[in-house]
Amino acid sequence: MQIKNVTVAGGGVLGSQIALQSAYCGFNVKIWLRSEGSIERCAPKLDRFAGIYKATLEATKANAAARARGLSDEDATADELDALAAKVDPARQGIVLTTDWDEAFGDADLVIEAVAEDPAQKIPFYEELQKHLPEKAIVVTNSSTLLPSQFAEYTGRPEKYLALHFANNIWQGNTAEIMGHAGTDQQYYDQVVEFAEAIRMVPLCLKKEQPSYILNSMLVPFLSAAEALYANDVADPETIDKTWTLATGAPNGPFRILDVVGLVTAYNIVSMNPQASDPDSTPGKICAKLKEKIDAGKTGINAGEGFYKYR
Amino acid sequence: MQIKNVTVAGGGVLGSQIALQSAYCGFNVKIWLRSEGSIERCAPKLDRFAGIYKATLEATKANAAARARGLSDEDATADELDALAAKVDPARQGIVLTTDWDEAFGDADLVIEAVAEDPAQKIPFYEELQKHLPEKAIVVTNSSTLLPSQFAEYTGRPEKYLALHFANNIWQGNTAEIMGHAGTDQQYYDQVVEFAEAIRMVPLCLKKEQPSYILNSMLVPFLSAAEALYANDVADPETIDKTWTLATGAPNGPFRILDVVGLVTAYNIVSMNPQASDPDSTPGKICAKLKEKIDAGKTGINAGEGFYKYR
Repeated sequence: MQIKNVTVAGGGVLGSQIALQSAYCGFNVKIWLRSEGSIERCAPKLDRFAGIYKATLEATKANAAARARGLSDEDATADELDALAAKVDPARQGIVLTTDWDEAFGDADLVIEAVAEDPAQKIPFYEELQKHLPEKAIVVTNSSTLLPSQFAEYTGRPEKYLALHFANNIWQGNTAEIMGHAGTDQQYYDQVVEFAEAIRMVPLCLKKEQPSYILNSMLVPFLSAAEALYANDVADPETIDKTWTLATGAPNGPFRILDVVGLVTAYNIVSMNPQASDPDSTPGKICAKLKEKIDAGKTGINAGEGFYKYR
Repeated sequence: MQIKNVTVAGGGVLGSQIALQSAYCGFNVKIWLRSEGSIERCAPKLDRFAGIYKATLEATKANAAARARGLSDEDATADELDALAAKVDPARQGIVLTTDWDEAFGDADLVIEAVAEDPAQKIPFYEELQKHLPEKAIVVTNSSTLLPSQFAEYTGRPEKYLALHFANNIWQGNTAEIMGHAGTDQQYYDQVVEFAEAIRMVPLCLKKEQPSYILNSMLVPFLSAAEALYANDVADPETIDKTWTLATGAPNGPFRILDVVGLVTAYNIVSMNPQASDPDSTPGKICAKLKEKIDAGKTGINAGEGFYKYR
């Protein structure tokens, strides 16, 4: 493992999680933030996640079902769980938050870009980044919708640039989809796989560039099909979910998944379909149904209600 | 419940299961078969399924996880499970197998058509059937790919005709999708819902006619998306399955599901896509990959190997 110094660019929900998880697993971690205001918003997130880590490790002692795959092994003893919990605060405290480009990136082995999902922000970031990076540094993007080939040329090191895509709540949903572009060098891809494993992620390796990666390539058509049944009034969400869970043994049907994804995100995805502007088309009907719920504040589990009620 | 006498038309795998399940739940059951040869092939299936019912009920006594939802309640005691097991052989023995139309259908309250999935066989069946049916009889089709509206006129009783679609291994996968056509009378629809519950199925009610019903409307695009990732060499089946199961908590990913569905069925579904004849298209590539496995005898779990090995 040649990676020791990890810098996360961006301190949003996922950037904070990636930073803490890397620090928890023994890496030297910095977070680069755009402003002092961003630092003030990021620090409480780190504290909150550190609290969740400790509470989860404590809960695992009494109840194995509480275990988060990113935090402990299945066979960890109570003593081992205590030892892991004791690592959380020092890991949190060790994370350096800075707005200084040279301090953040000057000795980085790996930069994890988690800035806003907007090429107009990512491109200037990469252009400035390369002025401060050492030759050795590998750069990965956590983008979920944009492709590494869109940005490779702006990094100044296309062969050391690829995507490392995390799921939310990475201490639990510990998957990392790893995807290069055509110019990524295999040796750097392999180092990123090794790093993903070192921070307790399950690396999911894509052999080539694929919009939406693996998960969303399946999830989007699956959820769209469920939304179509609902929007065309074939069946109600409860019936559709029951059909899926009973037939496949899955814990959640598509409408429970949509509540987690959030109805605004679902709406944005359907809206991108050119047919969506026709109110008589299926995408148009889906948009109308989702908008009705969004307008009523029922945007999903985080709002307390979406297709289901959560409080 | 006005339904007491149930006649299943066709003694294939699913017809036999439906007949035994109905008899197990106290209905008077006949199976209409086309020939003496069909009777000889059907009887051993009934015996085999009866054996599975008894073994499952026995296994449930020691291990609640062995329970099949179609056979016993969650809180059944050992004595109750013994009493249920004792009902299996009489139920099996009580099933009348006949090639005689009048004997089969002359006093039927409900006919469950489970003949071959071919309009050229279903239409003549319905045309003959109506000559032997009492006025009271409701007719349902177990078709999984054809729509009730395609056959309603041939039944002579469109208002008493609808679809009741079972999953395979109905004692475990106890769902029944219930779907009328535009001319189905709600009172007969409701009676079929009641019957489905009476034979321990979970009724999944469609409000209108929908090709592929609920489950396959979601399953087919989901599996197609997974097949596309594989056929375009984005990732291998194990990685794709791992992505799905880790992200959604589902017990099986798409390739394990495909092994259960069977690769021949999967191939037939993709082949229907007009693009499939172009070997450079995604459907064409999927067909080629599936055909390779089918030609090697790896047709799924029933063959001992598909995408995974099972023995």
